[in-house]
Amino acid sequence: MGDTITIIGPGLLGASLAKAVKQKGLFGRVKTWSRRKETREKCVGQDWCDEVLETPEEAVAGAEFVVLCPPVQVIPALLEQLAEHFETGAVVTDVGSTKASICEAAQKVLPEGVEFLGSHPMAGSEKTGLKHARADLFEAMACILTPTASNSAEVTAKVEDFWQDIGMRTGQTSPEEHDRIVAAVSHLPHVLASVLSENLLHQPADWKNYAGKGLRDTTRIAAGDPILWRQIIADNLGPIEEMLNGFQESLHVFQEALKQRDFDKIEQILADGKVHRDSLP
Amino acid sequence: MGDTITIIGPGLLGASLAKAVKQKGLFGRVKTWSRRKETREKCVGQDWCDEVLETPEEAVAGAEFVVLCPPVQVIPALLEQLAEHFETGAVVTDVGSTKASICEAAQKVLPEGVEFLGSHPMAGSEKTGLKHARADLFEAMACILTPTASNSAEVTAKVEDFWQDIGMRTGQTSPEEHDRIVAAVSHLPHVLASVLSENLLHQPADWKNYAGKGLRDTTRIAAGDPILWRQIIADNLGPIEEMLNGFQESLHVFQEALKQRDFDKIEQILADGKVHRDSLP
Repeated sequence: MGDTITIIGPGLLGASLAKAVKQKGLFGRVKTWSRRKETREKCVGQDWCDEVLETPEEAVAGAEFVVLCPPVQVIPALLEQLAEHFETGAVVTDVGSTKASICEAAQKVLPEGVEFLGSHPMAGSEKTGLKHARADLFEAMACILTPTASNSAEVTAKVEDFWQDIGMRTGQTSPEEHDRIVAAVSHLPHVLASVLSENLLHQPADWKNYAGKGLRDTTRIAAGDPILWRQIIADNLGPIEEMLNGFQESLHVFQEALKQRDFDKIEQILADGKVHRDSLP
Repeated sequence: MGDTITIIGPGLLGASLAKAVKQKGLFGRVKTWSRRKETREKCVGQDWCDEVLETPEEAVAGAEFVVLCPPVQVIPALLEQLAEHFETGAVVTDVGSTKASICEAAQKVLPEGVEFLGSHPMAGSEKTGLKHARADLFEAMACILTPTASNSAEVTAKVEDFWQDIGMRTGQTSPEEHDRIVAAVSHLPHVLASVLSENLLHQPADWKNYAGKGLRDTTRIAAGDPILWRQIIADNLGPIEEMLNGFQESLHVFQEALKQRDFDKIEQILADGKVHRDSLP
């Protein structure tokens, strides 16, 4: 796709992306920078990056394509810090799991000639960090692009091609619609898994010995990094509150049916749940 | 362990159990009966059973060990129907996912010399039926035994040995405590997965294209059989209502923290959820 890509923040997503770029030969050079010195040192000599820089300004110098992969709440400040350092003509995207606040920040701070288009590759793991990176992390997963009125068709196509070349299925929505979608299909399930798991922590300790595969699967994502998820939740408050309220209403309907011994209603809810689950891609 | 075992109800659990008994050589003969003629016909000639009978009374004749594997709500009536047909000295157990009502029924209807001890092997799959049976379904999973004051130490040990020989980890509780445990670690997660999935059914249809592994895992068990789960819920109403109320309270605490923008509290809940999830066996 070009000569040089810069990947800022080589954690699980950033380093996996670098590996995929190298494996698929999408760019000639991969440059990277991490906020943590220890991580920068780990990157030196890895076969998935050609250059590890000491500052983010140096890292984006000369890059036609930049992907910002740090924690989501850092991205707006990073865009502001780097605004005058991106190459003219550079295409900048990110992997943040919320989009409205990031796209708004980009709109505000980037100069003429540097175009930002938000991306959310929906891949990940409860295992975080560089050491769990793998080239196939994104393979066949969904990536949502959030072009706005300020994006050119050319750059939108370029970013979409990039994620498709990485191996992802892509789709487009507005940043605001994106945030409602992920609140429903990602943040709400995460909150419920965490609250369920936290709730069970207060039951007798030996009860967990009787947990089967059902509980393990239902709560798997509750093993995710609490600090990372605190940030995601903080950055998508409104949509998450909306989805939680909707879930509360559904749960209330179920509880009422239980109270009324209305087993036909309960079976209907279970059957509707199965319809949706069976329809997941 | 003996000459003849009878397994009533060769569905996923019953047929898997028969396969495991054969593979491990625990009994010389495996006899079976299913309510459905079609299922009985499918069993004939299978290498995991020696005899398929036309009635449950014939099926239990001559058996030292009987395992009842039909749908949970059928077990009390089946115990009553077979009470006078079990061999004197026979040991009877089951695989029902609730225990208080079944143990109470057994206590009431079985004659002197036939001892029932409740079992709940916590294995299964969202795929039901004979055709998904496999000998390793129970391997390394937990089995709860629910002996009562009426059980002898000898029979308790015999039933425990049986499940351990099948490959399970065993534990013992009262029938009532069992029902609270499974309400917490199995039925509550199932209800939440179903209600979440049903809730998402009412969102725009294309949103599910953006579902990742998190939502898939969190809702996997919502693909279970609605009729089977209707029965399980109906048979364990009190404990399920108790656990749902407790979950509602935990969710309410989370929602209040969101409303107050108390992100330290949110992080604490996420961290506690991670502690519990990381501690699952």
